[in-house]
Amino acid sequence: MTVSDTTSPVLFELRDSGVAVVTLNRPDRMNAWGGGLAGAFYRCIDRAARDPDVRVVVLTGNGRAFCAGADMGDLDAIGEASTSSDTDVTQLVGERHPYFVTGVNKPIIAAINGACAGIGLTQALMCDIRFAAAGAKFTTAFARRGLIAEYGISWILPRVVGWSSALDLLLSGRTFYAEEALELGLVKEVVPSDELLPRALAYADDIARNCAPTALAVIKRQVYDDALRDMVATSAQAEKLMHESMQRPDFIEGITAFFEKRPPNFPPLEEEKP
Amino acid sequence: MTVSDTTSPVLFELRDSGVAVVTLNRPDRMNAWGGGLAGAFYRCIDRAARDPDVRVVVLTGNGRAFCAGADMGDLDAIGEASTSSDTDVTQLVGERHPYFVTGVNKPIIAAINGACAGIGLTQALMCDIRFAAAGAKFTTAFARRGLIAEYGISWILPRVVGWSSALDLLLSGRTFYAEEALELGLVKEVVPSDELLPRALAYADDIARNCAPTALAVIKRQVYDDALRDMVATSAQAEKLMHESMQRPDFIEGITAFFEKRPPNFPPLEEEKP
Amino acid sequence: MTVSDTTSPVLFELRDSGVAVVTLNRPDRMNAWGGGLAGAFYRCIDRAARDPDVRVVVLTGNGRAFCAGADMGDLDAIGEASTSSDTDVTQLVGERHPYFVTGVNKPIIAAINGACAGIGLTQALMCDIRFAAAGAKFTTAFARRGLIAEYGISWILPRVVGWSSALDLLLSGRTFYAEEALELGLVKEVVPSDELLPRALAYADDIARNCAPTALAVIKRQVYDDALRDMVATSAQAEKLMHESMQRPDFIEGITAFFEKRPPNFPPLEEEKP
Repeated sequence: MTVSDTTSPVLFELRDSGVAVVTLNRPDRMNAWGGGLAGAFYRCIDRAARDPDVRVVVLTGNGRAFCAGADMGDLDAIGEASTSSDTDVTQLVGERHPYFVTGVNKPIIAAINGACAGIGLTQALMCDIRFAAAGAKFTTAFARRGLIAEYGISWILPRVVGWSSALDLLLSGRTFYAEEALELGLVKEVVPSDELLPRALAYADDIARNCAPTALAVIKRQVYDDALRDMVATSAQAEKLMHESMQRPDFIEGITAFFEKRPPNFPPLEEEKP
Repeated sequence: MTVSDTTSPVLFELRDSGVAVVTLNRPDRMNAWGGGLAGAFYRCIDRAARDPDVRVVVLTGNGRAFCAGADMGDLDAIGEASTSSDTDVTQLVGERHPYFVTGVNKPIIAAINGACAGIGLTQALMCDIRFAAAGAKFTTAFARRGLIAEYGISWILPRVVGWSSALDLLLSGRTFYAEEALELGLVKEVVPSDELLPRALAYADDIARNCAPTALAVIKRQVYDDALRDMVATSAQAEKLMHESMQRPDFIEGITAFFEKRPPNFPPLEEEKP
Repeated sequence: MTVSDTTSPVLFELRDSGVAVVTLNRPDRMNAWGGGLAGAFYRCIDRAARDPDVRVVVLTGNGRAFCAGADMGDLDAIGEASTSSDTDVTQLVGERHPYFVTGVNKPIIAAINGACAGIGLTQALMCDIRFAAAGAKFTTAFARRGLIAEYGISWILPRVVGWSSALDLLLSGRTFYAEEALELGLVKEVVPSDELLPRALAYADDIARNCAPTALAVIKRQVYDDALRDMVATSAQAEKLMHESMQRPDFIEGITAFFEKRPPNFPPLEEEKP
């Protein structure tokens, strides 16, 4: 197991199973989003994407919050800049928009340990799957601050919870809790706080041990890319990808392991060329 | 509070909170949709859209029904016209299709007090959020009358309840009740009949008092417009809108009120130019 | 009632109500998908589509499984062919992709009697509505075999259960049961095993007896085709289709039967020209 410097704004830990745990680590600021934390987050995700030993990523927060939204300090600076002629809203997220994680070639699972608000909720929704601690507090908040549906939440939220619930959560900006998030389908499971990380890790470990990394990369891309394809194009593309998948040794190993009733032994994703 | 003439086919009432209540008011006809009622409805919604004092709209029905569908008298006339050479199906809805309310710059919330069928259900689904009275009866009905999925319900219903439930409700044309509508996500909440309007108004009042009208207008447009955009375009557009939102005084007021733990004082939407 | 040869890999039975029951019939192979069964299935669906006496189709499986996935024998052959230069993945499905049933002009309802895996799940999802037997086992399985999201499941699954649950089921390839499938909205109802076919037939009979075949054909096409249309185009198209529907005798019969409180007597769909 490798653990990064514990004073960094985002921690990176690699488990033996091939699961990397990325932890937002500014607990005194409720892990608020901003330049320093965002940049460190991008570097951790890049490392996870590149490292062949990483098969699945779990994203969580240190302390009481998952991510309470934009760093108000940064937001103040942006606000002042905005009212002057020389606006730079991009300083909040740096060079990337939250949806970049949907383009990462490995499953990313959020373990939402506490408050999840504003851009923190947008970033959590861009993860593929979400677990939450009982009682965790959620809000889009934007409409209550005079802001808009930031950075792609108007794309992903309706597709996760349906258009009606998305409008409810975005127009009202109301607070809701993990239990309602579960009912809406915004999170997959709610567990007591102290079982959250073990549960998310057990789920991630299962994928890391039993699913082929190449298959995971392809399937993740299919689900997001096919959102705006028609069924004919989707199925034609799937046939092409299926043909390719059958030429990889993963397919023989998958079938063989299944018949031999043993865990499969899939090779890692090849390291991405920089 | 201003109340319109109570003999009108659609009533308009403006509450102090900035919530306009629009009431379908042909209880003896189950608020059936047709020329007179539709036209009066459009005028009420236009008034709500234009009036800076209106921040949120609640749509409900007077009597036992919300809207039991097309006015059968009108439908008969259309049917006769249709079988002749000179068809005019547009006389049912006049110059507008039900989706026009999705383009209105203010949240529109349906309080479904009773029977909600056919084009009445289509119109309710075009509202942003729905509350329903316990026991309220729903049906698409079209397939049972030899008709088709009218005026955009084939667009909005699958996006609200998923493709499978949409096919179930549209192909079977079966009757279902508020309780099932809640399970399907077609309505947000079901409450006893006499608590329906108070509950919908409390929800609407909260938005009117705490959310910035400009933010509401932008967010509503985002959610509907981003349905067919890809994630990259959606996020780029959001960044542009976010930049604009940070140049409005609403943003400073929203943040300040939040820190001062007081209700915000957002200015109204500017009156639309005719 | 007409029943086909009971040794055929797929059985066809036409009930008096106008419901055709199509039964996958290789119980010793868990109704595994492959050349023989797939081809027989296509012929049965074609027959149902062409026969004016058929108004609704119910698809089920004989024995313990609905369809346990690809026939491993066929898959082995494909795998060997794949690793040679002369690959032919199309031998699994023959000349058609599972989505072809969404283009059939009659409602197709799956009665999932048992194991539903891999391409069997894809085919079930392409049916319009699904009922399942209590305890029936489901899995996408692909990622655990080194395979990808086959033949359009990456299109239909997110639209039925939402993007998040789709990613969960596709990335993990985990096993789940009818009860969870119900919660996710993947199936409409779960009933005890011995009530499954009677329940699905009662639902199908109701549609066959009370809904106009032409309306069913049009509505089904609308729901799938409007997935990538915008609301304006959808509503314009609906108005055109509504105009056409009002010129058919179905409309008069539908309204008349409604007022006379009797079952309607709708004519069959005209036989499709080959």
